[in-house]
Amino acid sequence: MDAELLDTGCLSLLKKAGSVVVGLSGGRDSVALLHLLHGAGLQVVVCHVHHGIRGADADADAAFCRMMADALGVDFVEKRVDVPRYAGGRGLSLETAAREARYEVFRECTAACGTPYVALGHHRQDQAETVLFRLCRGSGGHLGMKPIACREDGLVLVRPLLDIPREQLTAYLEGKGIPWREDASNGEADVVRNRLRLQVLPLLEDIMGRDVVPVINRSARIAEEASAALAAAVAALEVEDPQGRLYLPKVAAYPVELQKVIVHRYLKRQGVRNVSEEVVLAVVSIIRPGSPARLSLPGGRVARRREKRLFLE
Amino acid sequence: MDAELLDTGCLSLLKKAGSVVVGLSGGRDSVALLHLLHGAGLQVVVCHVHHGIRGADADADAAFCRMMADALGVDFVEKRVDVPRYAGGRGLSLETAAREARYEVFRECTAACGTPYVALGHHRQDQAETVLFRLCRGSGGHLGMKPIACREDGLVLVRPLLDIPREQLTAYLEGKGIPWREDASNGEADVVRNRLRLQVLPLLEDIMGRDVVPVINRSARIAEEASAALAAAVAALEVEDPQGRLYLPKVAAYPVELQKVIVHRYLKRQGVRNVSEEVVLAVVSIIRPGSPARLSLPGGRVARRREKRLFLE
Repeated sequence: MDAELLDTGCLSLLKKAGSVVVGLSGGRDSVALLHLLHGAGLQVVVCHVHHGIRGADADADAAFCRMMADALGVDFVEKRVDVPRYAGGRGLSLETAAREARYEVFRECTAACGTPYVALGHHRQDQAETVLFRLCRGSGGHLGMKPIACREDGLVLVRPLLDIPREQLTAYLEGKGIPWREDASNGEADVVRNRLRLQVLPLLEDIMGRDVVPVINRSARIAEEASAALAAAVAALEVEDPQGRLYLPKVAAYPVELQKVIVHRYLKRQGVRNVSEEVVLAVVSIIRPGSPARLSLPGGRVARRREKRLFLE
Repeated sequence: MDAELLDTGCLSLLKKAGSVVVGLSGGRDSVALLHLLHGAGLQVVVCHVHHGIRGADADADAAFCRMMADALGVDFVEKRVDVPRYAGGRGLSLETAAREARYEVFRECTAACGTPYVALGHHRQDQAETVLFRLCRGSGGHLGMKPIACREDGLVLVRPLLDIPREQLTAYLEGKGIPWREDASNGEADVVRNRLRLQVLPLLEDIMGRDVVPVINRSARIAEEASAALAAAVAALEVEDPQGRLYLPKVAAYPVELQKVIVHRYLKRQGVRNVSEEVVLAVVSIIRPGSPARLSLPGGRVARRREKRLFLE
């Protein structure tokens, strides 16, 4: 019954893997996640990140997480990071530093456990807040978080609660008599996101006369599915020759929107990092015969057109 | 110089066509659009829709539009619709009725003029408002309006100002000394959209500390480009046999997200109207051998699998 709260795709992935690291802050969402995954028979390793801020409260969060892991009889790892120092050393905001430091800890922890999977407690409201945030920050096509997200550093983030309303997590915990720390935070006292959650979402709900969170999330899911479909379709077009070069007569016959996607994918596959729209457009512009046959890319690589093929040097 | 305000794609399309119907309410946006298109040398026909609401004000709007067309020496068409009656007869809200009645007028007007093109004055702020509206209403993948949109009824909506800030239109009109009617409305006194524009967009701007309108529009443009790329890629996959049936061994090899897109496109091409996600999933479920070979669709059509092909009866 409780396992129904877990996304089936995430659950079957984790069951195949056998073990998973659970990021536990001590707050409602991650506490519910831990108990649900443990209850589903998975081998969990609890990983708590102490962010070196919030003093005694943070110490109490860490102690709470350790007790909880002990009570369940599962492995517990606590890592301390000095977020202010981490931020200062890298010129990052506290929020960004906290997130990056946390992923660094997760990388160490998963490596030690021999699994790439970290389960995170993001739920439906977090997803809607993320969609609004990315929409207003211009993060392009990916509006929402993915239930299963492969990061470039090899971590695989798994979010089995992404479509579950927070209220259902509260009800689950209260029904089981499981405690949580109301103020436990993941170290991101992010004013922007808080205001999106506490001001914008309720205003939208009032204006539209309905709970907009599931609707926003549905839009994000549809966009995500379209993105997956596009990736699969482009892979199936077979626009590369056996030497892994783009075969241009085929590419040039497509509309420019598809050319951009093909070029973007090709640059990523060739290991070009942070591929911007400007770079993609520049490469698209040398596809046609008669255009310049050579283009310098950021990072020292060179795109070259020769014998109706495009490749990187 | 002024022509730079017009989207180049829209402008070249209209220049090829030669003539265009301009929907003129008398308000700032459509007045600017009319003068810009006329100034670019296009043959314009002004079409004003009198919505049968707002009494003397609406009459004054109509008279203003007629004067403006006369001053430019261009054809003028005024059509009256009784929106409250139109709404009552069809069980529509006033906003929906006003929009549908307006498109009906545009269809008549374009047919009489021998062009499918109607130019509309939507600008950058309208686009951002539409994105928020659709995001919260769950309209799926298409978050924004398209600069060039082909409707099923044959009308082609052209929006040459979609990426232009309203302030720039004001500056253009003031610079030229061109008057407009401040309160002229297109008949949609839409409370929801007004609140999105007047409450949500400013709140988001305050929270994000920047003008979010261009950022939201960029997200919409990227989503729209991805949608165009997906359509082109799926068309290039050649999943239909010469008889126009879906060849299933090929389709079944793709991930389910792509199968859904292929089936959705196929149903639309076969003339199935209002294809819902549920219908698409039901058809996807009979792709594999061993599943039921026959499925009734809404509207009396039947999807059938036979000899590794899927087709409609």
